[in-house]
Amino acid sequence: MSDVRIDDLPVRDELRGKSPYGAPQLDVPVRLNTNENPYPLPEPLVERIAERVREAARNLNRYPDRDAVELRTKLAEYLTTTSGYQVGLANVWAANGSNEVIQQLLQTFGGPGRTAIGFEPSYSMHALIARGTGTGWISGPRNDDFTIDLAAAEKAIAENQPDVVFITTPNNPTGNAVPPETVLALYEAAQAAKPSMVVADEAYIEFSHGDSLLPLLAGRPHLVISRTMSKAFGAAGLRLGYLAAHPAVVDAVQLVRLPYHLSAVTQATALAALEHTDTLLGYVEQLKAERDRLVTELRATGYEVVESDANFVQFGRFDGEGGAHAAWQKILDRGVLVRDNGIPGWLRVSAGTPEENDAFLDAVRELKKEQST
Amino acid sequence: MSDVRIDDLPVRDELRGKSPYGAPQLDVPVRLNTNENPYPLPEPLVERIAERVREAARNLNRYPDRDAVELRTKLAEYLTTTSGYQVGLANVWAANGSNEVIQQLLQTFGGPGRTAIGFEPSYSMHALIARGTGTGWISGPRNDDFTIDLAAAEKAIAENQPDVVFITTPNNPTGNAVPPETVLALYEAAQAAKPSMVVADEAYIEFSHGDSLLPLLAGRPHLVISRTMSKAFGAAGLRLGYLAAHPAVVDAVQLVRLPYHLSAVTQATALAALEHTDTLLGYVEQLKAERDRLVTELRATGYEVVESDANFVQFGRFDGEGGAHAAWQKILDRGVLVRDNGIPGWLRVSAGTPEENDAFLDAVRELKKEQST
Repeated sequence: MSDVRIDDLPVRDELRGKSPYGAPQLDVPVRLNTNENPYPLPEPLVERIAERVREAARNLNRYPDRDAVELRTKLAEYLTTTSGYQVGLANVWAANGSNEVIQQLLQTFGGPGRTAIGFEPSYSMHALIARGTGTGWISGPRNDDFTIDLAAAEKAIAENQPDVVFITTPNNPTGNAVPPETVLALYEAAQAAKPSMVVADEAYIEFSHGDSLLPLLAGRPHLVISRTMSKAFGAAGLRLGYLAAHPAVVDAVQLVRLPYHLSAVTQATALAALEHTDTLLGYVEQLKAERDRLVTELRATGYEVVESDANFVQFGRFDGEGGAHAAWQKILDRGVLVRDNGIPGWLRVSAGTPEENDAFLDAVRELKKEQST
Repeated sequence: MSDVRIDDLPVRDELRGKSPYGAPQLDVPVRLNTNENPYPLPEPLVERIAERVREAARNLNRYPDRDAVELRTKLAEYLTTTSGYQVGLANVWAANGSNEVIQQLLQTFGGPGRTAIGFEPSYSMHALIARGTGTGWISGPRNDDFTIDLAAAEKAIAENQPDVVFITTPNNPTGNAVPPETVLALYEAAQAAKPSMVVADEAYIEFSHGDSLLPLLAGRPHLVISRTMSKAFGAAGLRLGYLAAHPAVVDAVQLVRLPYHLSAVTQATALAALEHTDTLLGYVEQLKAERDRLVTELRATGYEVVESDANFVQFGRFDGEGGAHAAWQKILDRGVLVRDNGIPGWLRVSAGTPEENDAFLDAVRELKKEQST
């Protein structure tokens, strides 16, 4: 029996020889590899979570609110307050992490016989979830400086006629935001081609110098904005993603969502966190300042850095084959874990606490000294 | 904008004209329609959940344990203790409800170009999740008394060569368990045909007069047992499903699972519940006695009842077109919500507290009186 392996099972052909997705989970002093928020939730919020979960637990023998009405209402209020664009319950849908939101969107608008496009390098889960839902994946182009080449992107959409277009803004792992006029042009291109759904993945938008794309929803029923509480709300452990879109989109994803997909404890915890929005957005401001410091200091040290609107910074370049991975290992040897996303010449570092960022900056300064001697 | 509806969006063809799955959530005094456990969690467990979630919340800014090692270890201990068959961490996988377990299994072993079979009427989510994952669905046969006709089932497997075979035992909504020798014969038929994966859905097994199929895992790497904490653990609101299988199956589903799919609060809450297993299994014994009482009393009142190994009972028959639905409405008029699963002539009632069951029995006795006058 112990000799039975994955490939001995009747798994789908495209899964043969594959490994599960996931960053290495290593035990090191400074972990700046998964864009987590370094600030633990404040103690009053921890207590409020315990309180709301205790309440929810008293009714845990019953199925949760299948439509998560209270939570979606509060998420809509948060979006309205922070963007100035009015959305309500009917515009918002929530799921277990933005990954599940994206999976539901692809089950609804992608799937077998359909395709999705992303402009790579970008968030690698888009392609993986496409594979998981049987959606064909098209790797769209990006400039060498990681901005989107609009003409090339429009051409890719016109030629491939994808059913779903992903625009990650700010982009992960490169950190740069996509200008709203580029998003608008891509939306138009996508409508001319098919029409297709356009998903703007705004997981990191709270860290941006610019504004959310939410106001673009007006009059655009094929636009979806995806969000998460993992980053700005410091709640990666909660797994709460959500989207804002035309009410018809919210109705449509309910055709594929697993009934009662969002547990009562998840709903209770997210509601508690939303009560503490102001405090958590205060941490976001600190992280933005630290992110800007990382950019400045990395450049002062002689590294190239991509403009960042996220809570992480992509830096390089590390020349030669495997140069980035060798640098990753040397930084790790100094007790700091950053991320090698497999982009030749580049690494990604998440903005941590001031102390964590100091440790990282010390490590990369030493590395630079080593390289220039 | 308000005139845009689901069918105006570029949704997949097979979703057009469909409605979301879900039982009506009506506000009535006695709800016996979704097979929930009527007993709220005991207060010491509620406190323990608050305590463990408080701990987890202190680290909520970090991603959860992606592999849910502690939880899977404790689930394995629970299965080993209750079945006498030794399983460990490597045999167990957990997800957000058994629906997500089934979705992951179909993404791994089903999907576009593949098919799954179930013997209907059975748990309707199997077919719906097949649709959601692009897996072709084959409706296999069942006898008029809702047992599985082995010869007919073997023939359906041989003819259709499905990639995944679902066996729900105890079956939902009919309540009857499938004899282990039937499961074994179907497993053999599935191996001869393809080989295929066989998924035994044991969501209600703790309520059965018989034993779990767990010992059948020995030497059968294509067998998967799916379970849930929704029913026996009285935690429908928690959304915690799991499976036991050969370690290669656990490895394989990790190729399609969304990374960090299981939140830290879900893991903490489930671990707390597992600490109170003995108390919760005490409630199961009470429910089994109440279930048996429902069977006896319904028969004494003149209803036909399917043998039940679950926490619910299917009863009838209600003659004429729409007879079952008319009876459902009349029972509802008396303040008791049961389930009309669309099986002509039959309704399903969940075992509630003794008081709830009394209210139900009063209602169906009146109904019978009405019908015979």
